[in-house]
Amino acid sequence: MIIAVLNGPNLNLLGTREPDLYGRETLADVERSLRRVATELDVTLEMSQHNGEGELIDRVHAMRGRVSGAVVNAGAYSHSSLALRDALTGIAIPFVEVHITNTQARELVRRRSMLASAAVGSIVGLGTFGYELALRGLVRHLSAGE
Amino acid sequence: MIIAVLNGPNLNLLGTREPDLYGRETLADVERSLRRVATELDVTLEMSQHNGEGELIDRVHAMRGRVSGAVVNAGAYSHSSLALRDALTGIAIPFVEVHITNTQARELVRRRSMLASAAVGSIVGLGTFGYELALRGLVRHLSAGE
Amino acid sequence: MIIAVLNGPNLNLLGTREPDLYGRETLADVERSLRRVATELDVTLEMSQHNGEGELIDRVHAMRGRVSGAVVNAGAYSHSSLALRDALTGIAIPFVEVHITNTQARELVRRRSMLASAAVGSIVGLGTFGYELALRGLVRHLSAGE
Amino acid sequence: MIIAVLNGPNLNLLGTREPDLYGRETLADVERSLRRVATELDVTLEMSQHNGEGELIDRVHAMRGRVSGAVVNAGAYSHSSLALRDALTGIAIPFVEVHITNTQARELVRRRSMLASAAVGSIVGLGTFGYELALRGLVRHLSAGE
Amino acid sequence: MIIAVLNGPNLNLLGTREPDLYGRETLADVERSLRRVATELDVTLEMSQHNGEGELIDRVHAMRGRVSGAVVNAGAYSHSSLALRDALTGIAIPFVEVHITNTQARELVRRRSMLASAAVGSIVGLGTFGYELALRGLVRHLSAGE
Amino acid sequence: MIIAVLNGPNLNLLGTREPDLYGRETLADVERSLRRVATELDVTLEMSQHNGEGELIDRVHAMRGRVSGAVVNAGAYSHSSLALRDALTGIAIPFVEVHITNTQARELVRRRSMLASAAVGSIVGLGTFGYELALRGLVRHLSAGE
Amino acid sequence: MIIAVLNGPNLNLLGTREPDLYGRETLADVERSLRRVATELDVTLEMSQHNGEGELIDRVHAMRGRVSGAVVNAGAYSHSSLALRDALTGIAIPFVEVHITNTQARELVRRRSMLASAAVGSIVGLGTFGYELALRGLVRHLSAGE
Amino acid sequence: MIIAVLNGPNLNLLGTREPDLYGRETLADVERSLRRVATELDVTLEMSQHNGEGELIDRVHAMRGRVSGAVVNAGAYSHSSLALRDALTGIAIPFVEVHITNTQARELVRRRSMLASAAVGSIVGLGTFGYELALRGLVRHLSAGE
Amino acid sequence: MIIAVLNGPNLNLLGTREPDLYGRETLADVERSLRRVATELDVTLEMSQHNGEGELIDRVHAMRGRVSGAVVNAGAYSHSSLALRDALTGIAIPFVEVHITNTQARELVRRRSMLASAAVGSIVGLGTFGYELALRGLVRHLSAGE
Amino acid sequence: MIIAVLNGPNLNLLGTREPDLYGRETLADVERSLRRVATELDVTLEMSQHNGEGELIDRVHAMRGRVSGAVVNAGAYSHSSLALRDALTGIAIPFVEVHITNTQARELVRRRSMLASAAVGSIVGLGTFGYELALRGLVRHLSAGE
Amino acid sequence: MIIAVLNGPNLNLLGTREPDLYGRETLADVERSLRRVATELDVTLEMSQHNGEGELIDRVHAMRGRVSGAVVNAGAYSHSSLALRDALTGIAIPFVEVHITNTQARELVRRRSMLASAAVGSIVGLGTFGYELALRGLVRHLSAGE
Amino acid sequence: MIIAVLNGPNLNLLGTREPDLYGRETLADVERSLRRVATELDVTLEMSQHNGEGELIDRVHAMRGRVSGAVVNAGAYSHSSLALRDALTGIAIPFVEVHITNTQARELVRRRSMLASAAVGSIVGLGTFGYELALRGLVRHLSAGE
Repeated sequence: MIIAVLNGPNLNLLGTREPDLYGRETLADVERSLRRVATELDVTLEMSQHNGEGELIDRVHAMRGRVSGAVVNAGAYSHSSLALRDALTGIAIPFVEVHITNTQARELVRRRSMLASAAVGSIVGLGTFGYELALRGLVRHLSAGE
Repeated sequence: MIIAVLNGPNLNLLGTREPDLYGRETLADVERSLRRVATELDVTLEMSQHNGEGELIDRVHAMRGRVSGAVVNAGAYSHSSLALRDALTGIAIPFVEVHITNTQARELVRRRSMLASAAVGSIVGLGTFGYELALRGLVRHLSAGE
Repeated sequence: MIIAVLNGPNLNLLGTREPDLYGRETLADVERSLRRVATELDVTLEMSQHNGEGELIDRVHAMRGRVSGAVVNAGAYSHSSLALRDALTGIAIPFVEVHITNTQARELVRRRSMLASAAVGSIVGLGTFGYELALRGLVRHLSAGE
Repeated sequence: MIIAVLNGPNLNLLGTREPDLYGRETLADVERSLRRVATELDVTLEMSQHNGEGELIDRVHAMRGRVSGAVVNAGAYSHSSLALRDALTGIAIPFVEVHITNTQARELVRRRSMLASAAVGSIVGLGTFGYELALRGLVRHLSAGE
Repeated sequence: MIIAVLNGPNLNLLGTREPDLYGRETLADVERSLRRVATELDVTLEMSQHNGEGELIDRVHAMRGRVSGAVVNAGAYSHSSLALRDALTGIAIPFVEVHITNTQARELVRRRSMLASAAVGSIVGLGTFGYELALRGLVRHLSAGE
Repeated sequence: MIIAVLNGPNLNLLGTREPDLYGRETLADVERSLRRVATELDVTLEMSQHNGEGELIDRVHAMRGRVSGAVVNAGAYSHSSLALRDALTGIAIPFVEVHITNTQARELVRRRSMLASAAVGSIVGLGTFGYELALRGLVRHLSAGE
Repeated sequence: MIIAVLNGPNLNLLGTREPDLYGRETLADVERSLRRVATELDVTLEMSQHNGEGELIDRVHAMRGRVSGAVVNAGAYSHSSLALRDALTGIAIPFVEVHITNTQARELVRRRSMLASAAVGSIVGLGTFGYELALRGLVRHLSAGE
Repeated sequence: MIIAVLNGPNLNLLGTREPDLYGRETLADVERSLRRVATELDVTLEMSQHNGEGELIDRVHAMRGRVSGAVVNAGAYSHSSLALRDALTGIAIPFVEVHITNTQARELVRRRSMLASAAVGSIVGLGTFGYELALRGLVRHLSAGE
Repeated sequence: MIIAVLNGPNLNLLGTREPDLYGRETLADVERSLRRVATELDVTLEMSQHNGEGELIDRVHAMRGRVSGAVVNAGAYSHSSLALRDALTGIAIPFVEVHITNTQARELVRRRSMLASAAVGSIVGLGTFGYELALRGLVRHLSAGE
Repeated sequence: MIIAVLNGPNLNLLGTREPDLYGRETLADVERSLRRVATELDVTLEMSQHNGEGELIDRVHAMRGRVSGAVVNAGAYSHSSLALRDALTGIAIPFVEVHITNTQARELVRRRSMLASAAVGSIVGLGTFGYELALRGLVRHLSAGE
Repeated sequence: MIIAVLNGPNLNLLGTREPDLYGRETLADVERSLRRVATELDVTLEMSQHNGEGELIDRVHAMRGRVSGAVVNAGAYSHSSLALRDALTGIAIPFVEVHITNTQARELVRRRSMLASAAVGSIVGLGTFGYELALRGLVRHLSAGE
Repeated sequence: MIIAVLNGPNLNLLGTREPDLYGRETLADVERSLRRVATELDVTLEMSQHNGEGELIDRVHAMRGRVSGAVVNAGAYSHSSLALRDALTGIAIPFVEVHITNTQARELVRRRSMLASAAVGSIVGLGTFGYELALRGLVRHLSAGE
């Protein structure tokens, strides 16, 4: 079973970007951790990061018929992208939304998610560890559905 | 005379994405049909699809001084992309907007077109056959201008 | 198979009326072109133009049980006539709405169509060539329904 | 120089219809008075009255290329007919709008004129004498334009 | 004594147009029934149907000085035609408004009547039999006025 | 088949009460006329008038299981009585509402009917003759339902 | 000359009902006082009280052609009964409205009078003495009209 | 000790009127049950039902000085009758309001009670058994006051 | 069959707390009376009172699967507790709401009940005897459902 | 290191209360799972559930200086309890909010959380597995802070 | 004379909870200070703190007939607890409300007090010294009442 | 010291795109001018242009740790891109925003800048010369900060 982990704009800066807010772990660190969890859960990960909205959509399309679910942190695009939502809805796979920081405790513009109502659930404010939790939650959700 | 046919995000999923809404013809099918019409009309087609807003703009720029007009289905970007409109206006070529479904009869967010008032005209709700009609309409428009 | 092409008020002025806006082709020119297309598509055309709302309704009634579909450019009546819509709904045939100019880029009063939601689709802003496109689109729509 | 005097619905009833409101002069009386003025001004009059919106449009079309200007009292259609306005604009002649009663001082529905903004000007509430004033005003306008 | 029975747009379709709503009797059937009643009431009927607003007005004018009263079902024009109301008021004859269906129980746009406050009264929701009732009511009203 | 004719408050004054508005026929005159029509239509009439709301309700109850339909002129109670409507709905018979004067052309308070939406239809403004028309319309309605 | 004194619901309780509000005089006491005044004014009194709206209307009807005017305290019905007003208007006699308490200084619902605008005038808040004042006022009004 | 049980309009239809809502027990059934309870409680019942507002008020007046309390279901008058409330307040006896259905869960117009704030209390939504409960509650209330 | 009688905050003060409002009977007195009724009705009572919201919820939970219905006077919590309503809904038993005083005739905040729409019905303003009535009403309701 | 898991009202019903919404796992099942995770994470759990707001606050206070963090599902109190938030803020320990269902997709009253902005983060919509994820997330958060 | 000092939720945390806001004095410190004042004023103190709404109510009940007045800081419950107010009103003793911080200058939710209108008065924003002031004020109030 | 000059969508068209609005200088011309200024100011320039939002973000990321500040003209993305702002904030360098035209004097959509509040300042409406001014301003800002 393949699970995609999709990251949006600026998440490649993780570890260096506003570390007080986003922490000091890099995306590579996150990936290393997630791979260990994936091995434990016996799933294969496909992890990617794109700064472009179109590239994110490309990536979503590439999942079709091959990937069982996705962990999605769409970064700043979470709050505006109808096209990304259309892409996720278009390939019809379950996904869990992740935010590293507590978006409910930041600027107003970050409180609305274009993806939320199409997602299984969300994990917010638990730092980069939220990815691992989302992966576990998604795999559990997929198992429950079997 | 070269005519560009530009497709926006998720249109590469045509034929598989919500077929009750968008039909079962793929973009390749559409292209095959359009090429036959192009031959008949004695024009050369440049057909492309991009999920990225920047790539769509790049593509528009690449048309400048070389392409005589465009058939544009910008998908979900139709409703938000000022940059794409600026690009089309910037290279000053005539274009016809196409929508496969009747966007006037769907969600509110899909009713506004950022491109409409800069276009020659639009063809809405006639399925993928709308591309052919738009091509014919555009070529006629261009001939009229000669 | 008979297809009606119905024209509303002032369309008899085509070719002379505000030519910068509506072009220099007359309605007779349009008819000649359409007949060629009709031959190609193997359909019979019934083309008419009326300045009166009642005459347009009479004409619609005369189509009942005899005509398979209609291309309708109701001119200024498009924006107000409940009676014309009742007539088209009353005889229950599919029709495609045509506007020579881009009504979305003109006065506010021309943006609302009383006919739009009862139509198959619409072709807007492609000049008189829009009639031919509408004819092709309608015939395709009728064939698809067979 | 030919000047058209165009009358809309119910103006054939002048003299008998609600005489307290519209006066006791008939349209024939109005015509007689106007002809005297026309002779004085050295113009030829073409006076007509129609109850149908389509017939008024037909009449307007018939003026094209032959008539230099028009005095128009479109009656109740003044408040709703975009098509009549399009007809007058379509033949591109100057016209002066006339209303016998003060339409601004009557029911709400009579306050809006679809013709007003396309007219040279209007004469309202001066009884049937308004026709004569409109004719004089129009001829002055035409002379100024020479 | 002559009584006019005036029908507006689309009423010529009676019997075939949405029969669940308007019934299966044609306008000819209605006329036949009305003629029997007219004979009984010793009045002469002038029955007509027009799809055009101008023709309806012409017809109203033609009644002046000759017709004693009218039964009027103005169809879709009931809700918008100021000119028709002006015509009826202009010739100063009593008329009874008829609606086949219960217009108070349909779409909002059909609830307003431009004619109602100028009529003697109205008969609503009693099917095509309402015409006969209106004729009887009008003749009685006229007799009472003698 | 028995038909009830139910009259509300002040209708016993008919013929003397504001005769310019309500006419000079008394309720006894109305009854005599209706009986002739009833004989013609082969129905039995039960005619009554009450000034009290409770007596009207009593009367409605007395119709249950015995009367096939009712002609109802509830007078001033038409505009306020929930209890009378409950009574008519409670015995589940069809009824036609009658008003002697044109209630649409009088005070605002007379424009709302508590009974209208529960009635088959209504006859308004045709004087006392409206009762006969309502009786005929109701009997026709009942026959149609057989 | 006969003057009616009409009392509505609960006024038979006068003297015992909420005496702090309505006083301790009974309706019989009021009547005794009024008869003395009537003798002085040389008019004959007809005094009555009814709790039913219909009975009050009956009583009003019974006054017709026999009674010259009325003093009316309609109690709680003053605030809702269009039918009672119609009855008083129907028999066309002048009447003066009386309220023992100051209805303008009590609950909101007691502030509106359905009778007020049809009355000659009203006397409010002067206790049972108001009846005497009303009688004197009415007789003065009737004399003035002679 | 005498207790009145007062029923308003349409309650005589109990058992046959909309039985899904009001149940299948008739008012006679209710009376039989109440008489057994009255015997048990050693009180005498006076049960009545009136469709007229005035008759209900008469009945209330007739209770004065003789009846110790009342169970009142005023039906549709509960929501509008100030006169009935005045009558109950006027004779100054305690009463309990009953509603068979849950009026808080029906149409808006049935949610307001003119009687509620003058009552001892209310029993709502417990079917016809609510009468018995109200009788017991009232008797207890009266005993408590001794 | 076990019936729970659940009392909310401050009801332990019954008999001493604002006795003019709540009476002089203590909760023990109420219990004694209810036990007699329970014996008569052949049901077993479980009566309790808690000042804490959580304890009330605990008590509700303890009823699950064992208790057939409940009489609930939640005191001041009636007006705010979503958690108590969730508890009652969560164990899915029918309950009747009781209020000793007439909550409709007190402060605004006491007029809203969070429990009302989930209850079978309510008994309001009949003092502590209302508990007995509610018990009888509930047992009748439960028997009807058998 | 001790971690508290705090559950609010009605969560003791887990597994039996509306299982389609909340699932079939009991709180004991959840506890068993969490203990296994706690062993793995080398933390000691203190799990509790209280239906009372005060008891929840007591419990929070009891954590002070002894407990390192908390997983909190405050049930219906999440949406109203300022006191619980004050308690959690008052002892200054980090906590993660959990909701079994997707509260963003339920009734309006459940969308507001009084706790959210004071929490580290939240896990929503992932069923009872969300507790485990929250525990892992919290322990990681605490480790990061060392 | 005994005076109760009642503290609500989280006040046991005083001195450690957000000391910048609430100060560094503990509740024990407050108690020590208050006892000195009590000795001076010759009253006996009963000081308590509870986190549960129900327990606070229990405590209030336990004061009845024994305590002369109370100083009450109900913490977060001040803003929502009608039940606590009912308890204080129920035992009918005078009380003074205290808040350490200026609740009018904090979040909106802290601005409304359910207790305020039932209290003798309140002392707000003067830190823990407010307790002493309240005690002095209350004793003065009690002496004045002797 | 290195300074980046970042250009957004369609700025590669400078000199040819709507020259009346944007001028006839190309981006190469701008670069040439800027290099002369850079030499004067002794800074090194890195100039780039991208049409894609993702590519602009990539470019911003590539500046990190190497570039001292940036001159940014984000074109149409200025008005919508939270992601670009996050990128600039993420690498924590000062930047000056430039717009060739007066965006405050154009369409509404161009008035909002997502970048403005994160920038050092902005230069708007001074044509391509604005770039030079921005470079001078930025260098001055950077010197001031040394």
